Amino acid sequence: MKAAGIIVEYNPFHNGHLYHLQKTKEITGADVVVAVMSGNFIQRGEPAIVNKWARTKMALLNGVDVVFELPFAYACNSAEVFAYGAISILNSLGVNWVVFGSEAGDISLLKKIAMHLAFEEDEFKKYLKIYLKEGHSFPKARELALKRVSKEDIEFLPNNILGVEYIKWILRTNSKIEPLTIKRVGSLYNDPNLGSGSFCSATAIRQNINNLELIRDKMPPFSYQVLMEEIESGRGPVSLNDFFEFFLYRAIVYKDFLKEQFDVKEGLENRFYKHIFSSSSLEDLLSKVKTKRYTLTRLQRILIHCLVDSKVNQKTLLSTKPYIRVLGFNSRGKRYLNSIKEKVKYITKLDSYIMKNPEYNSLLELEIRASQIHALKYKEYHKYLQLEFKQHPIYIPSRE
Amino acid sequence: MKAAGIIVEYNPFHNGHLYHLQKTKEITGADVVVAVMSGNFIQRGEPAIVNKWARTKMALLNGVDVVFELPFAYACNSAEVFAYGAISILNSLGVNWVVFGSEAGDISLLKKIAMHLAFEEDEFKKYLKIYLKEGHSFPKARELALKRVSKEDIEFLPNNILGVEYIKWILRTNSKIEPLTIKRVGSLYNDPNLGSGSFCSATAIRQNINNLELIRDKMPPFSYQVLMEEIESGRGPVSLNDFFEFFLYRAIVYKDFLKEQFDVKEGLENRFYKHIFSSSSLEDLLSKVKTKRYTLTRLQRILIHCLVDSKVNQKTLLSTKPYIRVLGFNSRGKRYLNSIKEKVKYITKLDSYIMKNPEYNSLLELEIRASQIHALKYKEYHKYLQLEFKQHPIYIPSRE
Repeated sequence: MKAAGIIVEYNPFHNGHLYHLQKTKEITGADVVVAVMSGNFIQRGEPAIVNKWARTKMALLNGVDVVFELPFAYACNSAEVFAYGAISILNSLGVNWVVFGSEAGDISLLKKIAMHLAFEEDEFKKYLKIYLKEGHSFPKARELALKRVSKEDIEFLPNNILGVEYIKWILRTNSKIEPLTIKRVGSLYNDPNLGSGSFCSATAIRQNINNLELIRDKMPPFSYQVLMEEIESGRGPVSLNDFFEFFLYRAIVYKDFLKEQFDVKEGLENRFYKHIFSSSSLEDLLSKVKTKRYTLTRLQRILIHCLVDSKVNQKTLLSTKPYIRVLGFNSRGKRYLNSIKEKVKYITKLDSYIMKNPEYNSLLELEIRASQIHALKYKEYHKYLQLEFKQHPIYIPSRE
Repeated sequence: MKAAGIIVEYNPFHNGHLYHLQKTKEITGADVVVAVMSGNFIQRGEPAIVNKWARTKMALLNGVDVVFELPFAYACNSAEVFAYGAISILNSLGVNWVVFGSEAGDISLLKKIAMHLAFEEDEFKKYLKIYLKEGHSFPKARELALKRVSKEDIEFLPNNILGVEYIKWILRTNSKIEPLTIKRVGSLYNDPNLGSGSFCSATAIRQNINNLELIRDKMPPFSYQVLMEEIESGRGPVSLNDFFEFFLYRAIVYKDFLKEQFDVKEGLENRFYKHIFSSSSLEDLLSKVKTKRYTLTRLQRILIHCLVDSKVNQKTLLSTKPYIRVLGFNSRGKRYLNSIKEKVKYITKLDSYIMKNPEYNSLLELEIRASQIHALKYKEYHKYLQLEFKQHPIYIPSRE
């Protein structure tokens, strides 16, 4: 079966995602669409508003055929590590295409830039360093360095950056996957405005989560329905602020709670220690700790990794092959999974046998911890602390 | 000045406490009444419903002259360690009497039993072991062993046990303090019923904390008023169940969260690990973990020490001299503090100088941690995380 891969977060699934999915089917003519999806924490360094099982349901009900998990350690990470994790999984699956939305919508432009990033990393890093030293913020310095190296004029918007990273890893891993891009419609990735049309960003939906009538038009009905069910059952909406108490608790009990944590370098620790007990909210704390180099998103990721006590190392992640875990599938997806089972070792249900497998266990342990922490914010949290072990993949028979 | 010492928790201050205080003044004719009071966690292994500053206010408004802190490590501990801490502080202060309530109300009986406990510990422990092996619960085995050694017939009720422990430490430390006891009036220490009279247990008040009209008659007006202020300001009532989420969080992040913790022995750990993620509440968890040997109160203390990550050792505590810290005083108390300042080194306000003093710092660090954790359950918790450093002793001029 010819498979098209997509890399998604669906936080939550909205009309823009549906457009991306339909276009993917249209331009590839694939037999099956396979999604690699973030779990309970997303790339921006936030908890997903509803958990991965609900978001898998949204994906399947809207026409995705199989959903695989992007492990926590990769999902809640820089664009580079996020992209590496997702492309690795699509490589293992052997999909034919990867189709992603980008602001540019021009695959040859993105490819050119990715080539420079893939094979001229030293030069890129040299300029990155120079621009950082000049006092530019990290995103700005990256943009300037890439422009300098590639001599291309492109706006380095979030989805362009991710797209370039996908292609970079396709090139670096000698992958046979063909990258395709669709121009994003409607608003920008993190535009907080809902606007009047039927498209808006997931950020805008999350920010209006308490005014459900407003967001109803922006989501396919199935997706809205799942979101409602989750909220009514007390399993959401989960937000980063909900975890401030736990972060404080950690800081109370462990004076050096940031030691050896993900992406924390000297100086940052001290700013955290200085302000942690005198900030009125997580937002207030982050605004005090923020610098040009440490953007809000990056700080949020640090905070989440600290909460999970992940102690992951980006270099190690970039030389590890993530596990392949099925979160859900429809009838077509079932046939696809059958067709690949000889050559791909995928996990359908966690058990003690799998947990003991040294190939998977450190990434899976983090995944479980992250999910348990996410669950602590559900109303009846005690029911969901073992969900990762109890839950079977979601199966939704296709209406074919 | 002749001083009478009392050892209290005031959780919260009720009519029985007022009776004890008035009787103390009456039978000793002391110039000043000095209380040693538990801080934010109490001997039964529970958080205090309102914090130590509010309870200090209650004490002073009702006629206590000075309140000293019983450090967390001693307060939230067995009757033996609790009593050692309190008597040590009263010894350092050089008070003339200690006056405590007991169910027996007979000082010579309590003294006789304490003599056996103080000087025949080996024999007592031998029998304790035998009775435990026979399958008796710890309190029952202790009672049987003490009866066996002392040949006295006494009911080993909570305040009798504490009283015996006070006298034991007076004897063991060659203290000049004269112990006196008052027969407790009204209900038993942990009788959950409010009853119809004006006396009831603090437990009964805590259990009816959501029905304020019912408890109003059981407390002096000043005490009730302070309690109301605290509740209205969102600083209470704090209960053990409130900390279940933090306990779960700890268990999620640290698989061996009970390792090396206070009073945890092999076997207990495994029962906790087995049930932690499948219990519907803290109560449910404790009921599953409970054994004859590990009573509910003891398990609750373990849980709190684990939350605070205290890793205290009872033997070390029994060979350490607790610091002397003033929580509050009235005009008479002020004169008393002046009169002892040449011979007693007491702390009135925490600062970095004091925190660096190796004589105090480990106990004080635990105290601060415990207070911060208590504060996490106030409505505007971020305002109270540095309270221990900001707060001056409460001063209430006497109406003399």
